[in-house]
Amino acid sequence: MTRRTQIGVIGGRQVSQEILELAQKVGKEIAQKRAILICGGLGGVMEAACKGAKEAGGLTVGLLPVSSMTEANPYVDIVIPTGLGVARNAVIINACDGVIAIGGSYGTLSEMAFARQKGIPVISLKSWQFDNTIHTTESPEEAVEFVFRQIQMA
Amino acid sequence: MTRRTQIGVIGGRQVSQEILELAQKVGKEIAQKRAILICGGLGGVMEAACKGAKEAGGLTVGLLPVSSMTEANPYVDIVIPTGLGVARNAVIINACDGVIAIGGSYGTLSEMAFARQKGIPVISLKSWQFDNTIHTTESPEEAVEFVFRQIQMA
Amino acid sequence: MTRRTQIGVIGGRQVSQEILELAQKVGKEIAQKRAILICGGLGGVMEAACKGAKEAGGLTVGLLPVSSMTEANPYVDIVIPTGLGVARNAVIINACDGVIAIGGSYGTLSEMAFARQKGIPVISLKSWQFDNTIHTTESPEEAVEFVFRQIQMA
Amino acid sequence: MTRRTQIGVIGGRQVSQEILELAQKVGKEIAQKRAILICGGLGGVMEAACKGAKEAGGLTVGLLPVSSMTEANPYVDIVIPTGLGVARNAVIINACDGVIAIGGSYGTLSEMAFARQKGIPVISLKSWQFDNTIHTTESPEEAVEFVFRQIQMA
Repeated sequence: MTRRTQIGVIGGRQVSQEILELAQKVGKEIAQKRAILICGGLGGVMEAACKGAKEAGGLTVGLLPVSSMTEANPYVDIVIPTGLGVARNAVIINACDGVIAIGGSYGTLSEMAFARQKGIPVISLKSWQFDNTIHTTESPEEAVEFVFRQIQMA
Repeated sequence: MTRRTQIGVIGGRQVSQEILELAQKVGKEIAQKRAILICGGLGGVMEAACKGAKEAGGLTVGLLPVSSMTEANPYVDIVIPTGLGVARNAVIINACDGVIAIGGSYGTLSEMAFARQKGIPVISLKSWQFDNTIHTTESPEEAVEFVFRQIQMA
Repeated sequence: MTRRTQIGVIGGRQVSQEILELAQKVGKEIAQKRAILICGGLGGVMEAACKGAKEAGGLTVGLLPVSSMTEANPYVDIVIPTGLGVARNAVIINACDGVIAIGGSYGTLSEMAFARQKGIPVISLKSWQFDNTIHTTESPEEAVEFVFRQIQMA
Repeated sequence: MTRRTQIGVIGGRQVSQEILELAQKVGKEIAQKRAILICGGLGGVMEAACKGAKEAGGLTVGLLPVSSMTEANPYVDIVIPTGLGVARNAVIINACDGVIAIGGSYGTLSEMAFARQKGIPVISLKSWQFDNTIHTTESPEEAVEFVFRQIQMA
């Protein structure tokens, strides 16, 4: 058996409509490539990405900071309420083969830092660019393409 | 959308053939009821339960103590390498609507304790019985039936 | 430099006056032996043990489940608000050379299980006795003596 | 009783001699202000800061990523081997009233992000400056002064 690729979509809850639309497209692309979408399971970017993935028949996993399942957005298939608070950001990154950051604030920054530390592919779609090793793009399709290409090369 | 029920199978790595067969039957029953199987993702009871679930076309999640995906048993569909060590036992329980303990040692005991603390249904199939609130059985079918019945009543 | 011994006192928040008095005596004994008292930082057994330790000029550490420092009992010198929920129980045990369980419910049971799994000395003072490897006593002095003796022999 | 202030010193293991000297001065200043030094407990910046704190009679806490006490640097008074891997970065920040970042790589960046998210004072001493809200300095004395001033104003 071969494990399906697991792609993280990270980003904040309080984001613009433009960012939400990007996240939904990214989620859809991930599902079309038959990868599993990993996220923080809450609203905003996480919900939009899960919604996009479900539109394309994908599978979604939400790793919540809280310990209650009811906080998950309605597009999460598998709810993991870690109960770990923000320490769950490290768990999210451990569960990903590659990561797409969309918008987002300091929580997203912590996750990008963990991704860089672990050495997994990460791309910034209108998100942080804290050093010149971070690849950036404005296109959701290119973001997904980039991460899959990097994973295949690894 | 309605979330699928998530059932935890907990138990040790070093167990007898008899325990492995019970775990495989439990995994199969869980999948036949369309529930998602949650476990620690390693060998022994975890692997046998995942194998049983996959035989019945089920979906399996492994929450590993380590941070590397390669440690998962081959029947895990979604690999979450938490990197949390034994603290991941608390995360496993948070991710379950009900729990079936099969064999197992002190790690299993910690998980049963977390399940009792959280108030989710738990049954012991040739595992710990640390107080008289723990329901026990020798039958894998009855174990799965019991947990589903308790979840529906909650 | 030699590190001071770190002794965990584990137990619940809702306990009888008798249990609180035992915890306070245990805390005092630990401080008199110049060991550092490790606990969950909340009320009940944890607060009584810290109070006893401070009476004897000891040093106390509270590893809270929440992320806010204000939840610590007033006798905690060093407040570590882990934010990990009950997963912090595993961190408490990792921080101990030996553990004394006093009264307590399922949280305490999870910690005793982690202590047994890790192989560090543990004694039960009117607490759980889930298998015949758990040494029990009714005396706070004997509890502390037992754990120190076991640590020295290790 | 009033709790002593807890100041985090964060930074990497592989750093220059100049960075180590800055860390040692920062540790000494923290101890002279009677604050408790919180860190990751390993080598490099963490060890230098602890060494500086001990020179001034301070108290040091090391929150290790691993589960074994033996990995702590020799200047750690209280060893908390969390066993959480990099998720312990979130615990470190939860345990601090303010944070001084010295040098460091992606792990340090994740901790600065958590500090900003939580809203506790943070200063960068030859470390990351990922947005214009991060105060920077080249002076260890000023770094410590800044963090204490911000804590008092909060």
